[in-house]
Parts: sequence; C-alpha cells; structure tokens
Amino acid sequence: MKKLINDPANYVDEMLDGLCLAHPGLVRVGDDRRAIARSTKMRQGKVGVVSGGGSGHLPLFTGYVGRGLLDACAIGNVFEGPTINSCQDAIAAANGGAGVLCLFGNYGGDKMNFEMAGEFAAMDGVETRTVLGTDDIASAKPEESQKRRGVAGLIFAYKTAGALAEQGARLDEVATIAQKTVDRTRTIGVALSSCQIPGAASPNFTIADDEIEFGMGIHGEPGIWRHKIRPADELVDEMISLILAEKPEGASRVAVLVNSLGSTPFEELFILYRRAAQRLDAAGLTIVNPLIGPYVTSMEMGGASISLCFLDDETESLLAAPAECPFWKVG
Amino acid sequence: MKKLINDPANYVDEMLDGLCLAHPGLVRVGDDRRAIARSTKMRQGKVGVVSGGGSGHLPLFTGYVGRGLLDACAIGNVFEGPTINSCQDAIAAANGGAGVLCLFGNYGGDKMNFEMAGEFAAMDGVETRTVLGTDDIASAKPEESQKRRGVAGLIFAYKTAGALAEQGARLDEVATIAQKTVDRTRTIGVALSSCQIPGAASPNFTIADDEIEFGMGIHGEPGIWRHKIRPADELVDEMISLILAEKPEGASRVAVLVNSLGSTPFEELFILYRRAAQRLDAAGLTIVNPLIGPYVTSMEMGGASISLCFLDDETESLLAAPAECPFWKVG
Repeated sequence: MKKLINDPANYVDEMLDGLCLAHPGLVRVGDDRRAIARSTKMRQGKVGVVSGGGSGHLPLFTGYVGRGLLDACAIGNVFEGPTINSCQDAIAAANGGAGVLCLFGNYGGDKMNFEMAGEFAAMDGVETRTVLGTDDIASAKPEESQKRRGVAGLIFAYKTAGALAEQGARLDEVATIAQKTVDRTRTIGVALSSCQIPGAASPNFTIADDEIEFGMGIHGEPGIWRHKIRPADELVDEMISLILAEKPEGASRVAVLVNSLGSTPFEELFILYRRAAQRLDAAGLTIVNPLIGPYVTSMEMGGASISLCFLDDETESLLAAPAECPFWKVG
Repeated sequence: MKKLINDPANYVDEMLDGLCLAHPGLVRVGDDRRAIARSTKMRQGKVGVVSGGGSGHLPLFTGYVGRGLLDACAIGNVFEGPTINSCQDAIAAANGGAGVLCLFGNYGGDKMNFEMAGEFAAMDGVETRTVLGTDDIASAKPEESQKRRGVAGLIFAYKTAGALAEQGARLDEVATIAQKTVDRTRTIGVALSSCQIPGAASPNFTIADDEIEFGMGIHGEPGIWRHKIRPADELVDEMISLILAEKPEGASRVAVLVNSLGSTPFEELFILYRRAAQRLDAAGLTIVNPLIGPYVTSMEMGGASISLCFLDDETESLLAAPAECPFWKVG
C-alpha cells in the first residue's frame, strides 16, 4: 500500500506538525508534544473537555480541538492509545480550575491510561470525570451496551459537551450531557478494504475483492457478517433497521452522520445518505443538520458508517451552538 | 474496485439527490435536473457565477454552489462534460439581469457546450463571459499556459469571482478577477492509484504497486514521469520547485491548497503540508489561510496535489470574504 510519507517513525510527529502549522489555533503541548491544545489561553472557570486516542483517524481525535468542542487531546502512535504522560498533558492544558471531562472511545488502553492520568490530576487538585464513547452497535448486544466500542458517533458527544462547557456549566453537568449524548447515539459501519499502518509489511486485514464486512470496527475488529457486496440501498436498509431497533422511546428528531472510513468518496456517501434520509422519513423521524464526509477515518480504509444521535431539546440545541475546529464549523 | 452504489446508471442522479437532501441550500434545476442552483432566489442586479464539469470530482463542481461562491453549476455524467442543456439551465438559474460568468476547467467538451449555451443565452438577452481554469502546470509548458488543464486550483477563482459578484461588481470586473486568479494559480499533482468509473469493467488506468506518476491529470491524463515511489518530502520539494519557477514577479503571499485526489488520508496531506510550508517559508513567501483536505477529487483515486495562488491585495481580500457552501465556509 503506497503512502505519501517519509520515515514511518516520524509519521505521527510530522503529521501533528503539519496540522498545527496549517491551523495556528492548535498547538502541541507536553514534554513529548503528543497532546494538542487550543492556542488561546484556557478560560478560567470553564470546564475542560479532553479526548484522546491513537493516530490514524483524522479528523478524530486531534482535529476536534477548538472553540465549543475539545480543549485538548492526547494522541498516540497509529492505532495505539496515548501514553499516560500525554493524557496528563492534555488534562493539564484543559484545566481552567473547574475540572476536566475526559471523553474518549471505549478501548482498554485508552481507559487505563486516562484513569492513571486522572489519578495524577487529582493529586494536583484537578477533578476529572470520564465518559466513554460506546456507539458501535456491531460490537456488543444492546443489553451489554457498556461493552461497545466507540466509533464515529463520539463526535456528537464532543459537540454537546463542548457547547455546554463553553456556556459555563459545571463538570457534573458537562459529564451528564456527554453521557446522555453517548446513550442516545448508535453507529454501524461497513468495511470494503483495509488500511495499512505506516511501516507495516501488510494491510491491517484482508477482504476479498468482491466482499464486504458489515459491522467491522475502525481498526478491523470483526463485524457481524462478511458476504458478497450488495447494492448500497440494501446495506443502508440493514444499517438503519439495526439502529432503529434501538431507538429510544419518544425520539422524533435525529442528527445523522454518514461517515467515510477513509477512501470512500463523497459521491457514495451522498448515495448512502439519500437512502438513509428516505428510511428515516418513512420511520417518522426528522433529520437535523446532517453531516456527510470523512469525520472519523482509518486512514485509507474503504467503507462508511452511519451514526444516528436521537435528539431531545437539550442535545439538539447544543449541537446547533457555535463551534469551530479545523474540520467542523457550526454557526 | 468495490463501490457503495446501486445501479451505475443511477449513480449521478442518486448522488445529486443525496447532496440536495443533505444541503437544502442546493436545488436541482432544469428539465433533466442536471444543474444545481442555490435554493434562494437569484438576487436581481448581481452577476451570476456558474461552473460545470463531469461528475466524480466532489466537492467539485456542484459542492461549491453557495453564498460568495457559485450561483449554479451544470453537471455531467462521470468524467463527461455537462450537456448544452444543463449549461443553459445553470446560466438561466444564475441570471440576475447583470450577466453570467462561466468559470470552468479547460477541457474540450466543457468549452464546446458552454460556448453553445452562451450563444443561446445571448439570444435570450443574457450576457455571458467565459474564464477557463488552466492551473495544471504538468499539462503544458509555461509558454503554452493557455493549453493547460484546469484542476484543483480552480476553486481559488470560484472564491474571488464569487466574492466580487456578491459585492455587486459588474460582469467585466468579475471576469477580470477570475482571470487574474487563474493567471496567478499553479497546481501540480502526484497519482498513486486509479479510480474506477461506476459500471466500468476496470480501473481508469493502472500503476504498479510501488510506482507513482508525477503530474498525472485528475482523469488519469499522462504526467511528467512515472517512477518508484519516493519520500513525501522529496516529492513536495519537486512540486514546490516547479511551481515557484513560475512565481509572478513581486508575489510575497500565497494561498495554498494541499488536496487529496480521493483516498489519500488527511494524515498524509498534513505531512505534505508541513514540508510545503517549510519550503515556502524558505523562499520568503507568507502562507495565508491554507486549505488541506479533499477539495477536488477523482472518487477513490490515490494521490495529492499542491496548488499555490500567488496573492495581491485584491485577491487576498476576496479570498477572505465571507462564503458558505457545503464544503467550504469562510468568515
């Protein structure tokens, strides 16, 4: 797999340098500079919102640092969680004296390192709370939803938590809205082709030229089925049906994200969105400000995911609040 | 090559439906609905700015319809120019009584059809002017720059012409700024892998697993050389050197676009941008608001292009003016 890179050992650092050069609102912080923070001074009295995870998922994670979204983000090597130090650096950068919400995907390494970093932060008098993204419905049954992985739907929680923090809410309120957003968000993906970790000898997984895997995770974790490729509308129907089977009672409005896992073009995303919109309309759901594009990727992985966030008045209003980061501008 | 599509015969129409469903600011117009216009009424007395081209390049062309950018856009089948009818539909939709600028890439079919459409428009009393994007420096020598193809750099001309039209300028003024922007914009690309037209039996071109083609066009047109892949920094050095060899005298500020041709991830674009920024800095050039991402693609084609627009006060101010379309928001 060909890549436009230099020495794979420098991949993450050169990428972060480029990101911060292009977006002067972002700055690398910490001893190993593996945390990204807003270049403006943290507002005193504002709750900090922090995320983190492995590299290779841009715009996730670091691309969502900005006003009304994340204050800082810890970043690891490709598909590897950030170090404890980087998590500490991100928490420190987001500390405005009102506590810090750590909001990241439900992966073992990330959890362990953020937990340790949170303990160190507590010793420094910085209160932290943790909320985990668990939106991937392919990764565990509904009755074990706390075991689910976090994927693209995490960005809805960034947005609501970031907006509420910007409005001056308390840490417990910001954590509560993040948890509510996660609880009301569901994602399902379909993978067509693999990505390759820079420097690796072979792609991350293999999949036949005429096959797709339904429900595969963003690092190639096993999905629900692998079969011959089907028409887009059939796939969307199955995706939407699975998500709607978990629709919270009373929900009538939804935020929708049709996300490219990397190499799937905008044209195909709009074909998927067309069918999704038809199906949601038929189900009596009103779509609010859909997002269509590469929001959470795995480098050049082929495929797409659909995320629905079932709204209530509070989450809808926070999703519409002004926000600005390199990859998402609202208002 | 796997695609998330339905019947290839419906590819373009389903894609356009999805685009307009997702972005209610856009609407399909004309008998065959192969023109996209702003859903708000055309402002009387405002010069219209129109573009057009084949499908398969999103966000180009239709994705740039919006305030301060295009008023309408004609769209053809994948990699085929729009029909004369669609060009007429776009011109009619952009007619506010002050004339219409047709601003599109230098390709034979597009030119022919827009020319015919312009003649029909004249019979209806609508004055048109044509400016062609000719930014691809790999496609002809500097002394034959009028023969060059239009590629990613065209969006800088959308932006300046769109902004000046929004400010109430006359048709000749809007055409002049578009031409000046084209004249001061240079692009060079590198291709890693092919795309495939939906329904086609094979990819658009082939390229060995360890090779790249420098200067290849966005439809697979031949480039300058094909060799083994090289480190990103070496490629950027060659790209920037070629562009700077054509730097207009006195230029000290540049707008930069590091564009994914489709499947090349953001991470790699930022690695390319990092080196480009270093080289431009070393050349004494100041970068203004860089754009990094998939702005002009060929579906899932692998590779990237770098465009520089050498600024003067007028173009810099127009690039910074407010604009909003589904893929680009300024101010």
